[in-house]
Amino acid sequence: MNSTLFDRSASMSNDILALHDFANVLADKARRLARKHFRKTTAYERKADESPVTIADKAIEAELRALIMRRYPQHGILGEEMGGNTDGNLLWVLDPIDGTKSFLTGMPLFGTLIAFLQDGEAKIGVIEIPPLGERWSAFPGAARHNQKPCHTSGCTSLKDARVYTSSPDFFHDPNDWDRYDRVSRAAAIRRFGGDCYQYGLLASGYCDLVIEASLMPYDFLALVPIVETAGGKMTDWEGRPLTVNSGQRVIAAATPQLHDEALRMLNS
Amino acid sequence: MNSTLFDRSASMSNDILALHDFANVLADKARRLARKHFRKTTAYERKADESPVTIADKAIEAELRALIMRRYPQHGILGEEMGGNTDGNLLWVLDPIDGTKSFLTGMPLFGTLIAFLQDGEAKIGVIEIPPLGERWSAFPGAARHNQKPCHTSGCTSLKDARVYTSSPDFFHDPNDWDRYDRVSRAAAIRRFGGDCYQYGLLASGYCDLVIEASLMPYDFLALVPIVETAGGKMTDWEGRPLTVNSGQRVIAAATPQLHDEALRMLNS
Repeated sequence: MNSTLFDRSASMSNDILALHDFANVLADKARRLARKHFRKTTAYERKADESPVTIADKAIEAELRALIMRRYPQHGILGEEMGGNTDGNLLWVLDPIDGTKSFLTGMPLFGTLIAFLQDGEAKIGVIEIPPLGERWSAFPGAARHNQKPCHTSGCTSLKDARVYTSSPDFFHDPNDWDRYDRVSRAAAIRRFGGDCYQYGLLASGYCDLVIEASLMPYDFLALVPIVETAGGKMTDWEGRPLTVNSGQRVIAAATPQLHDEALRMLNS
Repeated sequence: MNSTLFDRSASMSNDILALHDFANVLADKARRLARKHFRKTTAYERKADESPVTIADKAIEAELRALIMRRYPQHGILGEEMGGNTDGNLLWVLDPIDGTKSFLTGMPLFGTLIAFLQDGEAKIGVIEIPPLGERWSAFPGAARHNQKPCHTSGCTSLKDARVYTSSPDFFHDPNDWDRYDRVSRAAAIRRFGGDCYQYGLLASGYCDLVIEASLMPYDFLALVPIVETAGGKMTDWEGRPLTVNSGQRVIAAATPQLHDEALRMLNS
């Protein structure tokens, strides 16, 4: 393995572009599989944390893993459904269906999340929304929505911000809900429901702030390069960078200024 | 005006089909206009109830009103943005953009709602979702999703039900929230966010129960014929039919049995 993959500027752009292209091949595969199951597969099991999982989640993760192992046998893989280890310095992190409750109720807002990490830092991210044919992706220097450059809004003030979170049910700690409630009520608009799609909306400037709890690394690592390359800032609730070892609370903002203001209120 | 429009069986089917076709012409117009504004128009004003309204809401309602007045000058019109009166026995009820917060945040789940009432009863309903190209419509005897027949799920038990509501913020009375919370926690899955789209999902069997508060007649009248013609049951929280004079709390279920069970728990 080569931990200096992105250190040599001559080869860096080729390597990263090849990896980004490959991440899009993975997303293409996920799109086809998810569309085959959407609004047809309704059976599910409960995982240990009570969240639902379907044969579609498992089938997509298995196919993406097989593609990665064939193309990059030396890379590590961490997936929501089949685990993995995070020891290697080149790591793919997969969430086959982010928003399984949406998937199970015919709601077209679920997505496949693909992250590629070098030395613990997310360099490439993809948010693929299969039913809508929408995709956000990023590598260092370029964030795109459906192949076109995208950018966060210029919102720098909480009072003007449009705020999203997936569900009040994600805030298991009532104190976390109270903190979210305080910040979001100081904003212009708050709306619920969206899972990974919310971060795509943020990267395209359609909303300004997303605050969530109870996310796992496979839920947020793919989002970080997209949000940050598009001009935003995304950290945990303590303002620290998000890694495979981060806790479950994240905040993503259109600008560093808005991030700063929201974070201060969240922690006040 | 002819209050026996649907009473004479010979002319009824022609009349109702013509009205249903015309409702779809209105929905086509709404689709074109909404798509022109979606993800471009972001300015909004606040109405008296603090809800946002945009030039798209106003433009769509104005255009639909003009089409109705030209084709059916004798019919009444009640619209979200421009009011109207409900005296006549043949009445169109319009919500140009249901889900303005979605519209304003690039979220493709908002819809145009069109209802046609005879003697106070909603006979025709249309849910048009402009960005997704999805449409539910119904007239007596036929409910359709994108031109194909649709039907609610067979779910008869709350413990198996997939439950939707738009937002906890719609429950202005904390007691109403507690009642919703109790019912939805007894279900299999609960998810937030969706406005009118939720009722389309219900009519197609993708979710089983929708419970909301703070809806106005233009928010729910178009939904009733779709839900009920597709096999479901939709009433207020007291189990009464929904009319232009109904209160703001509605419950829609895939089957009368599920409606009955959820209503009993809601009122226990």
